[in-house]
Amino acid sequence: MQAVELIRKKRDGEVLSTAEIDWLVEEYTRGFIPDYQVSSWLMAVYWRGMNAREIGDLTLAMARSGEELHVRETISPVVDKHSTGGVGDKVTLAVAPLVAACGVAVGKMTGRGLGHTGGTVDKLESIPGFRSELSRSEFLRILTKCNIVLAGQSSELAPADGKFYALRDVTGTVESIPLIAASIMSKKLAVGGSHLLLDVKFGSGAFMKTPEQAYELARAMVEIGRAADMHTVAAITSMQQPLGCAVGNALEMVEAIAILHGEGPPDVAELCYHEAAELLVMTGKSASVGEAEQVVARAVRAGHGVEKLAEVIAAQGGDARYIERPQLLPSAPIRTMLTAPRSGYIAGIDAERIGLASMSLGAGRFKKGEQIDPRTGLVLQARVGAYLHAGDPLIDIHARNDAEVTALRDTLYACYTWSDTYTYVDRMIYDTIRP
Amino acid sequence: MQAVELIRKKRDGEVLSTAEIDWLVEEYTRGFIPDYQVSSWLMAVYWRGMNAREIGDLTLAMARSGEELHVRETISPVVDKHSTGGVGDKVTLAVAPLVAACGVAVGKMTGRGLGHTGGTVDKLESIPGFRSELSRSEFLRILTKCNIVLAGQSSELAPADGKFYALRDVTGTVESIPLIAASIMSKKLAVGGSHLLLDVKFGSGAFMKTPEQAYELARAMVEIGRAADMHTVAAITSMQQPLGCAVGNALEMVEAIAILHGEGPPDVAELCYHEAAELLVMTGKSASVGEAEQVVARAVRAGHGVEKLAEVIAAQGGDARYIERPQLLPSAPIRTMLTAPRSGYIAGIDAERIGLASMSLGAGRFKKGEQIDPRTGLVLQARVGAYLHAGDPLIDIHARNDAEVTALRDTLYACYTWSDTYTYVDRMIYDTIRP
Repeated sequence: MQAVELIRKKRDGEVLSTAEIDWLVEEYTRGFIPDYQVSSWLMAVYWRGMNAREIGDLTLAMARSGEELHVRETISPVVDKHSTGGVGDKVTLAVAPLVAACGVAVGKMTGRGLGHTGGTVDKLESIPGFRSELSRSEFLRILTKCNIVLAGQSSELAPADGKFYALRDVTGTVESIPLIAASIMSKKLAVGGSHLLLDVKFGSGAFMKTPEQAYELARAMVEIGRAADMHTVAAITSMQQPLGCAVGNALEMVEAIAILHGEGPPDVAELCYHEAAELLVMTGKSASVGEAEQVVARAVRAGHGVEKLAEVIAAQGGDARYIERPQLLPSAPIRTMLTAPRSGYIAGIDAERIGLASMSLGAGRFKKGEQIDPRTGLVLQARVGAYLHAGDPLIDIHARNDAEVTALRDTLYACYTWSDTYTYVDRMIYDTIRP
Repeated sequence: MQAVELIRKKRDGEVLSTAEIDWLVEEYTRGFIPDYQVSSWLMAVYWRGMNAREIGDLTLAMARSGEELHVRETISPVVDKHSTGGVGDKVTLAVAPLVAACGVAVGKMTGRGLGHTGGTVDKLESIPGFRSELSRSEFLRILTKCNIVLAGQSSELAPADGKFYALRDVTGTVESIPLIAASIMSKKLAVGGSHLLLDVKFGSGAFMKTPEQAYELARAMVEIGRAADMHTVAAITSMQQPLGCAVGNALEMVEAIAILHGEGPPDVAELCYHEAAELLVMTGKSASVGEAEQVVARAVRAGHGVEKLAEVIAAQGGDARYIERPQLLPSAPIRTMLTAPRSGYIAGIDAERIGLASMSLGAGRFKKGEQIDPRTGLVLQARVGAYLHAGDPLIDIHARNDAEVTALRDTLYACYTWSDTYTYVDRMIYDTIRP
């Protein structure tokens, strides 16, 4: 086989065989095909797309390229949950312990934040002592003992995906739905859970800007799951404004703990309870969504979710006292309340720009490997649809110094659009794609 | 500027600015942009194309990337002639000395053969002693003295094109008309003649398979010439069968000399005289094509063309006696006549496969830098439209050994299609594109 032949085939809109895709992924991962041929092939894929069989083959080839955990061989059912990433997205932090508390195992490997969206591991690491780097045996031991594990993504997991992603990042081939679907699903298949709930977000704060793109990505991933015998369901959710109120690592931990206590912003809390219920139905733990929602509500009221979170954090070396008393989590030295510049209804909050503002306070990374500050970020005091009087609290800024606050003030005001009439708020759960 | 931004722009079908194209070519040539970004960009160009302004900018940036000869500053008018390459294409070998003999200077740098098509320099080098590598000053001195120079292409000429071409070759981005046009024209602009006649071939033996592709390429190159103030005309010619009878280096030299004597296969001879006449009209040496054709015919009858060829070959170190007595040129040890396997009209001769057969006899290169054998090749004894009786001479094979002849026999027969009725022969000159 010759790489240039596979480039030409894809360039001309042809379909590659399973053997051809396997060969390309294996030889590239081993360093036998140069970057400049793969980048040209990736642009041809961006242009011509891939059919479902090709996407499945690419995903499997990448999943097989490194360590495979086969967690479902240790415990089954075992669920995984993945969000395509958004601003203020702390849903996994609440859903995973809730589901585990309701008796369904959760084995999750999760990434770090990059760009305007945060990563679950970064949020967990705001808890002193918490260790996200686990060996395969630690991962399986904690999963068996606690019915839940929340690990950072091992670099041994689907290394081919890491190599492809790094190349896509510098060659204008990130925004290809077949490539995004294969990238996400390769890591899920390498972990090897039995059930997977995806949260595919669209909107200004998400990677998918339109519902149509979100549908296409969701369908591609559900199809990969079906072909690889991993029961996969995708919720399509709106990310037209930040998710909840807190944006920042420790700040989002605090909000997630509130949700586990039955508090927190109602729309995010509702999304978390709904996703937990969906997983109970998917795994057969509950017979219907109605029944599952009652099971979840009872777990919240009994405090089982927050107990489960404390348990897994302790198992991973974290100080569980912070879960009981989140107000003790490290806090930023400077807190400034930005107030509403006018009276009116909030008609829009630009999630992407809020995410970037939080990054500039140290809560996120501009480049891979950068240190982040767990203490900093923003807490929105009102969300889209709220009526504020001029001077009412708008955003609580948690910063390292006054200069950063001053530099950000105009940017933050510019994230808001105002209206004199009530603005309809889109429902958060837009649709659900099942196999 | 960032390379990934230029990739994304082209990927999204946008037009790049002159500054952006200049930057990309300069930084890539200096090694500051990696191959993997340029290959992705090239695939985006393959997909999205380029407008005339972008093609012109790319051409100029590549032309400026190395040595520039500015020959028109030494002598003017000074013409250049380029063929997109075909099987048995010895037209330049006859046209250039004829034009020079008629009083118009010809300053030509020419490439080596690769794949199934031959290169003019390889054909000239079948003459013992001939030297194609000339310094800039030698090039200009011989041009001034002889009114003609036929040099090999300097590696200092448009080095950016060399770098882009090598990358296109391994990334499935060769067959892009904007990139082909820019590649050819960058070298012509770096030489800097005042007038350029292009021969854009289509058909099975050419790189452009259809007339439509040939038109598109011809128009793109004529437009580049117009924008760069080089008077450019493109003939679109059919390459449905090999050009003339001889395919191979010394063999084609012999045929070119015959054409300069007013002999040789009538259709190729006619093409040569026509192209020479066209150049006389372009440069204002003749007032009309009719008048120019008479001037050319007189030069042929007087032997001025063959004298001019002998003169330039001697000036470049070659032994001019071979021009007077071409039968003394080195010949292959084995000659075998293949005969017609049946009676009938020749309906087709697959030029590409004839070219590949000649390559396999040693007359061409599979890879850059390979040695070729100037003696070997094929001489077709009859062309499309001829009626042959079974057993009549079909191809005279000039080979190094019997094994190569035996290995080729079936392949050569398979190049021919036969008919019981007369087959119409397409005219060779299909159209002419003027600015």
